[in-house]
Amino acid sequence: MRYVLKIDCPDQKGLVHKISGILFSHDLNMTENEEFVDKDRSHFFMRSEVEGELDRDEVINEIRNTISLDASVELFTKHKKNIVILVTKEYHCLGDLLVRHQFGELNANIKAVVSNHNTLEDFVNKFDIPFHYAPVKNLEREDHEKKLIDIIQNYDPEFLVLAKYMRILTPQFTRKYPNRIINIHHSFLPAFIGAKPYAQAYERGVKMIGATAHFVNESLDEGPIINQDVVQTNHKMDASFMARAGRDVEKIVLANALKMAFDDRVFVMGNKTIVL
Amino acid sequence: MRYVLKIDCPDQKGLVHKISGILFSHDLNMTENEEFVDKDRSHFFMRSEVEGELDRDEVINEIRNTISLDASVELFTKHKKNIVILVTKEYHCLGDLLVRHQFGELNANIKAVVSNHNTLEDFVNKFDIPFHYAPVKNLEREDHEKKLIDIIQNYDPEFLVLAKYMRILTPQFTRKYPNRIINIHHSFLPAFIGAKPYAQAYERGVKMIGATAHFVNESLDEGPIINQDVVQTNHKMDASFMARAGRDVEKIVLANALKMAFDDRVFVMGNKTIVL
Amino acid sequence: MRYVLKIDCPDQKGLVHKISGILFSHDLNMTENEEFVDKDRSHFFMRSEVEGELDRDEVINEIRNTISLDASVELFTKHKKNIVILVTKEYHCLGDLLVRHQFGELNANIKAVVSNHNTLEDFVNKFDIPFHYAPVKNLEREDHEKKLIDIIQNYDPEFLVLAKYMRILTPQFTRKYPNRIINIHHSFLPAFIGAKPYAQAYERGVKMIGATAHFVNESLDEGPIINQDVVQTNHKMDASFMARAGRDVEKIVLANALKMAFDDRVFVMGNKTIVL
Amino acid sequence: MRYVLKIDCPDQKGLVHKISGILFSHDLNMTENEEFVDKDRSHFFMRSEVEGELDRDEVINEIRNTISLDASVELFTKHKKNIVILVTKEYHCLGDLLVRHQFGELNANIKAVVSNHNTLEDFVNKFDIPFHYAPVKNLEREDHEKKLIDIIQNYDPEFLVLAKYMRILTPQFTRKYPNRIINIHHSFLPAFIGAKPYAQAYERGVKMIGATAHFVNESLDEGPIINQDVVQTNHKMDASFMARAGRDVEKIVLANALKMAFDDRVFVMGNKTIVL
Repeated sequence: MRYVLKIDCPDQKGLVHKISGILFSHDLNMTENEEFVDKDRSHFFMRSEVEGELDRDEVINEIRNTISLDASVELFTKHKKNIVILVTKEYHCLGDLLVRHQFGELNANIKAVVSNHNTLEDFVNKFDIPFHYAPVKNLEREDHEKKLIDIIQNYDPEFLVLAKYMRILTPQFTRKYPNRIINIHHSFLPAFIGAKPYAQAYERGVKMIGATAHFVNESLDEGPIINQDVVQTNHKMDASFMARAGRDVEKIVLANALKMAFDDRVFVMGNKTIVL
Repeated sequence: MRYVLKIDCPDQKGLVHKISGILFSHDLNMTENEEFVDKDRSHFFMRSEVEGELDRDEVINEIRNTISLDASVELFTKHKKNIVILVTKEYHCLGDLLVRHQFGELNANIKAVVSNHNTLEDFVNKFDIPFHYAPVKNLEREDHEKKLIDIIQNYDPEFLVLAKYMRILTPQFTRKYPNRIINIHHSFLPAFIGAKPYAQAYERGVKMIGATAHFVNESLDEGPIINQDVVQTNHKMDASFMARAGRDVEKIVLANALKMAFDDRVFVMGNKTIVL
Repeated sequence: MRYVLKIDCPDQKGLVHKISGILFSHDLNMTENEEFVDKDRSHFFMRSEVEGELDRDEVINEIRNTISLDASVELFTKHKKNIVILVTKEYHCLGDLLVRHQFGELNANIKAVVSNHNTLEDFVNKFDIPFHYAPVKNLEREDHEKKLIDIIQNYDPEFLVLAKYMRILTPQFTRKYPNRIINIHHSFLPAFIGAKPYAQAYERGVKMIGATAHFVNESLDEGPIINQDVVQTNHKMDASFMARAGRDVEKIVLANALKMAFDDRVFVMGNKTIVL
Repeated sequence: MRYVLKIDCPDQKGLVHKISGILFSHDLNMTENEEFVDKDRSHFFMRSEVEGELDRDEVINEIRNTISLDASVELFTKHKKNIVILVTKEYHCLGDLLVRHQFGELNANIKAVVSNHNTLEDFVNKFDIPFHYAPVKNLEREDHEKKLIDIIQNYDPEFLVLAKYMRILTPQFTRKYPNRIINIHHSFLPAFIGAKPYAQAYERGVKMIGATAHFVNESLDEGPIINQDVVQTNHKMDASFMARAGRDVEKIVLANALKMAFDDRVFVMGNKTIVL
């Protein structure tokens, strides 16, 4: 069996030695290992892949008893993550994820797609994935979110992916999935926070446009950033050309962020991520 | 003789034909030509390089009489620009420009370097460029700027380059040099406007840092952007490593912006640039 | 009506004036225009978009009679190109193009997909595009290509797109479609010409991998390059991770090359392209 | 005291535990640590920074006795490297390094600059660095290299930097400095191996140009690659513009490679580098 071990705790001398000793004593083979110490906060992060047979609770307890009862210790088999995707009307991120999923590249099972519009229903159906249409009409924000949650809970997803879901989620919603909702934002955050970032970018005359994949927390557009990238623009690009370039950078930035998250490489500390 | 012709005016049918006809009738050879129409504002931009003999005023008047008396028409011989560089204490942009200048790569004559500190005086002296130390101490902002202007005016520069000049210039100062002051800002604007952008970037946990070269107008950090670029960062980069990467992107972004400006390729319209 | 005009011919004084004069005399409005002179070869290239009513043959003849009977002059309405896509077994470029096509982003009609394997048949069928399986088994190369040509000719395509078609085409085939076959090659050409470029790149220990979209001529991997890009790699990337990054850069490089080609922006001169 | 520890050896279970145990038993604090296992070759690499007091030979012997007598184990204090730079006539990489050196950014002491031409002598003198002119005229290659070696040996450098040294070095020369000579090559290797890569790139019509920093071994242009990067080009860039863009990417690629090498982050295995 292959396992991923993720540990983070306040730094102390000898952590690597103690942890690797426990793994060694259980006859586990570390096939991949990376540590990082955030010196400003004196905090230690470690991600290992190990091979062998183990009793999960026993190993976790032994590590916590040895290094610190306050340490965050996660240990699980390597596995494809179950996810639900939320969209509104835009196809590019969703299409990219569905094609990757179809050919086994995503390291996730897309259990369902949920949308506040039915625009993409036929498209999703091509891929034999359940599509749920949850219209907003005549509903209070809280009631709409209850509907979403009812749908989502049936699938018990490990991650929610906002692949251009264009409605703001309330803190009541986002608190249910801490560090488990990943959004793609169509700008190089923190530039152009808020609505219509391409229009803002066009008005400001920037020479590059970007995209940001981030965890969603209670402050809109301000969750921990997982991945960012940009592309060159120029004065010849009109709004539609710029939007096309933007769509391409969005879909690649999101896919790479999901790769890191689904491979259990992302730690969150305060408003930052550590990607090991 | 080689000339650069820059025209911008409201768009109308037949502009290229009319302008190229005037050049043709003067037996001038267009060796390079580019036009652009901003369709949102229905505005026409054109930059040509022409070879031949001409009477400057005659050609300008003929063009303006033919297309529009309101047109902006500039015509000048291709030439190295006279510039003055303002710095504070940081060496990287200045050093890069001095080396390029020394070996004839800059398309400009650096007439002098002016600073509110004397940190870089010895360094500038190596390159046989006049260095002027204009300390701020005990001076009101306006009085300090008067000193700067006294120094600068002796050199009659066509452009001022703020190569990490870390003091805010008043509108009284910037109005003297409209679209002729070029600044390098150490972030991907409009992210991290204001002071200490690297500290801001580090706190926000961004995955890239950038730099922006822009004209300086009356609103700090909000002038028309000429050039931008970014580099990847990651959690392993501490503040000093990130600052080093930032210095490199700053110096290249500034040098490329100056290349465009000194080759007369940059038009300003509102808060944007068109680079032909 | 909107038209695209493409002209290339030996350079001479007054070309822009003469051509724009003809357009002006036909009361055509140039909405976009770009020229380029290759000074090494003294060759002129021009691409314009014009609006208005015109007699196609009349305008072409007038231009050729005015500037040179040897000039290449093309004039056609702006239109979506009819294309046929050839693939083998890999899904990523095909999937990207099918999704763009589905949502009207491609500026082309995919008339059919042809393959020497049936691996992707079910996938293509999802998108209601004809799929033709042309197995190689027991066929001489020439006979297999005859089969391909029989299939392709039914659709009368303006471009053939090799979206990871992994067989070499004979000169007999490629000569039928001069400057109309576009291939995506999985390396930054001319590095790693030939088979298994990722394995070559891995062995050589390069720090970036790239992709190249190019026209296919008689020399394999040596046609005129339309577009290239690269992504960073590092020692941690194993073969499968590197291949995943490669697939992403391939699909974006191909899509951008097709955007340029289908918008009639690409000129070929010798072994190079000029993209206006 | 701060030390860097570099270990590489065939992989075995428990290496991290054994090595970190030795460091822990000497009361050394690991402030930075990274490991990597090349699974294809089953080879282990580790780089640590440790703080504390130690007996160098004792720690090295203890590690080798514990893990393998065949292991490569290096342990040294963090220190600025002594280097000698070789150049021919081009200024851009040299200028960039001299400016960084002047302001303490290089993590190296430039002991001398050596050249087969005296073109850059005055420039180097500005920075108070010894310049040695070793003309080739009338000398056999071996005799010229003997002269170089005579000069270089006086400075006992830890690294030689070929900052655009345009003569081929013989295996007799390069064998004296295994994995200690770093060259900047003006192409994205392995594209355009050999002379005049920009002319080759221009002829081939590539859409990007690049640079490669690599160790020099006995096969020209084929040593282990440390760092690479590229910049976009287009048809408008003539030879001189392309060369200017090339100079900028060369100087940044070289500086970043030196940063990695001088910080003892680069391992060589076969024809590849591992950068930790």
